[in-house]
Amino acid sequence: MTDTTNTTGHLLCLLPFPEPLPLTDRIKKQHHQLKFSYRQFTIGADWKASEGLPDEIWKDVTVLFTLTQYPRDMKLAPNLQLVQIFSTGTDHISKLPVYTDSTVPITNAAGVPAPVIAEWVIMTILVATRKYNTLRDWQLSRTWDNGGKGKGLFSSSPSTLGKRIGIIGYGGIGRQVANIARAMGMEVFAYTANPRTSPESKRYTGYSIPNTGDADGSIPSQWFHGTDKNSLHEFLGQGIDYLLLSLPLTKLTPNLLGEAEFDILSKRNTFIINISRGEVIDQDSLIKALRAYEEDSSGVHGQGRKGLSGAALDVAVPEPLPKDHPLWGAPNCIITPHISGLYSDYGGHVFQVLEMNLQRLAGREKFLNLIDRETGYSSAVEKN
Amino acid sequence: MTDTTNTTGHLLCLLPFPEPLPLTDRIKKQHHQLKFSYRQFTIGADWKASEGLPDEIWKDVTVLFTLTQYPRDMKLAPNLQLVQIFSTGTDHISKLPVYTDSTVPITNAAGVPAPVIAEWVIMTILVATRKYNTLRDWQLSRTWDNGGKGKGLFSSSPSTLGKRIGIIGYGGIGRQVANIARAMGMEVFAYTANPRTSPESKRYTGYSIPNTGDADGSIPSQWFHGTDKNSLHEFLGQGIDYLLLSLPLTKLTPNLLGEAEFDILSKRNTFIINISRGEVIDQDSLIKALRAYEEDSSGVHGQGRKGLSGAALDVAVPEPLPKDHPLWGAPNCIITPHISGLYSDYGGHVFQVLEMNLQRLAGREKFLNLIDRETGYSSAVEKN
Repeated sequence: MTDTTNTTGHLLCLLPFPEPLPLTDRIKKQHHQLKFSYRQFTIGADWKASEGLPDEIWKDVTVLFTLTQYPRDMKLAPNLQLVQIFSTGTDHISKLPVYTDSTVPITNAAGVPAPVIAEWVIMTILVATRKYNTLRDWQLSRTWDNGGKGKGLFSSSPSTLGKRIGIIGYGGIGRQVANIARAMGMEVFAYTANPRTSPESKRYTGYSIPNTGDADGSIPSQWFHGTDKNSLHEFLGQGIDYLLLSLPLTKLTPNLLGEAEFDILSKRNTFIINISRGEVIDQDSLIKALRAYEEDSSGVHGQGRKGLSGAALDVAVPEPLPKDHPLWGAPNCIITPHISGLYSDYGGHVFQVLEMNLQRLAGREKFLNLIDRETGYSSAVEKN
Repeated sequence: MTDTTNTTGHLLCLLPFPEPLPLTDRIKKQHHQLKFSYRQFTIGADWKASEGLPDEIWKDVTVLFTLTQYPRDMKLAPNLQLVQIFSTGTDHISKLPVYTDSTVPITNAAGVPAPVIAEWVIMTILVATRKYNTLRDWQLSRTWDNGGKGKGLFSSSPSTLGKRIGIIGYGGIGRQVANIARAMGMEVFAYTANPRTSPESKRYTGYSIPNTGDADGSIPSQWFHGTDKNSLHEFLGQGIDYLLLSLPLTKLTPNLLGEAEFDILSKRNTFIINISRGEVIDQDSLIKALRAYEEDSSGVHGQGRKGLSGAALDVAVPEPLPKDHPLWGAPNCIITPHISGLYSDYGGHVFQVLEMNLQRLAGREKFLNLIDRETGYSSAVEKN
């Protein structure tokens, strides 16, 4: 980096952890004309902060780096040039003035949690397919069973080899899942809102961690698109063994998968994976489709049965999911408390995105991971 | 295939399951001058068959396809030209006349279970690293915890991203693990008995399932070799986060990892994965090294602690592992009952190897997956 990237103004960080000094020191050193402030917030499971902020805090802020805290009125922040958010999803801000009542560029953390969320996806696919919960139960009871029941169970169980994964929303997460799935010997079908027929339209230009993902979009053997039911149903009918939902929650995507969609997927007993937001699935219909599989003893395992063979959900409605919610009792359903994107290097990588955008601000270049307020997507992902 | 591949003689199949008609019909049709016999065996967890065979059964056999049944005296099988075994490991036959008292070519199933064993390896790495057992416990108690303890646990946990996996024995399994690990963003170091400095020596020429593995050996960023302790210790000292044992059990490999080796690996708290044979690890030393980590509360998680952070074992000594064996109680140790290589398409792929070798027999070509009786390796893997 050269001196030309040196930014003036005021960078305000409002984040739910103590100042990570090695990371912020790097920014202070690089941008020594930039005023730098850091304030730690405590937030609950509902992502609501425990304290408010004085109106005057926003006055001279040019760059805001935040997760949950935004001006209650955009007139309070007349100098704002960039809002870098700490998350990938934007649904928690889509009704706030910063989103609805402003044109200040908002950039997100798309790409940062992609490799770990992809780890979670691959882990749950393997746990379900290779019956890890059964293996864990055997271990807890010190049962070494490979001569009889055990051997039979695994000898008759498929692997992921040669199976087809459908990925709805081919952004940073979808691409890294595709990358690993292909290495495992699976076939990848992608589905996006807009058509991706040219090499440029297939390219991913958002932030991505080196040596991961599918930057040129060359992995899917088939690519479908659309925002209407017919297009979606055509895609769902492609003999999809695993279906990953890795699209953002926008005004178009609530209840994307409901009864009609699960009916199509049930013909293949598809395994559903959701790391998007709980709202993209009609949970009541999902529970029904999972129960239908469990209750249907007519077919042999995985063949000719009704319903969905299983699901893995890192998101739900509501969060936190109450103890008495029927989703907890749905058969063959892995539920985890929205932790798939958390890891010890997450913050370091989001700071990298912020730094790249500070450089672009100084150089008047197009921002990385710029949000399109219409769709809720990063422009890098959906607008090329 | 043409008529030139048509083989004469007698193919005897002695396998522990009923005749898989679609597969054997294909062979009968292709090799219609070949006498074909099929006999099903019942074998126990100790791989011992429940019944013997009459001596005269071997007399006219030219090709034997078997797992546990072999001539008690090689003079009984004067016409034998090829023994195709159903497993990858050869330790169960290394003291039998077919191995010690004969030069009849033996070919194995190397490469067939590689993709599913690799699935098991990746699954256990992710289960350990991404704390699936904890997530499973939370689910069973219907606990959605991502605001407090839960969030903290995952925010402070690493992912596999940027970690280094060391692979001892870079055959079909090691190569497919390397392929997936690289896609996950890991770095791969390989260790083999012989040096692999030329492109030809790095190549894998055994059977491998299409679109899997690392046929040209291009994935490892560093490649070490040797059969002595010094070479091994140099490799183990390379900052290895995950160590995979995917080498065969031969006369050189019992107790390959013992106290001295675990001392080196403990500096990095390496996670050990064994899908080879239980005998390659000194289990008492492993249990000690796992306990040392659990009992050391001096360092923060994963840093500066003694011992090994965990292990995943699909093999043990003895098998089946008795209920009162201390290995069951070793901390952070995943134990599964030698099932990693089982899956519903296994047999189909081994029949593919047999068919390719019947073709090579007719064409007098070098067999695929030919065993070197000195090393116990497939020649394809170790002798190029």
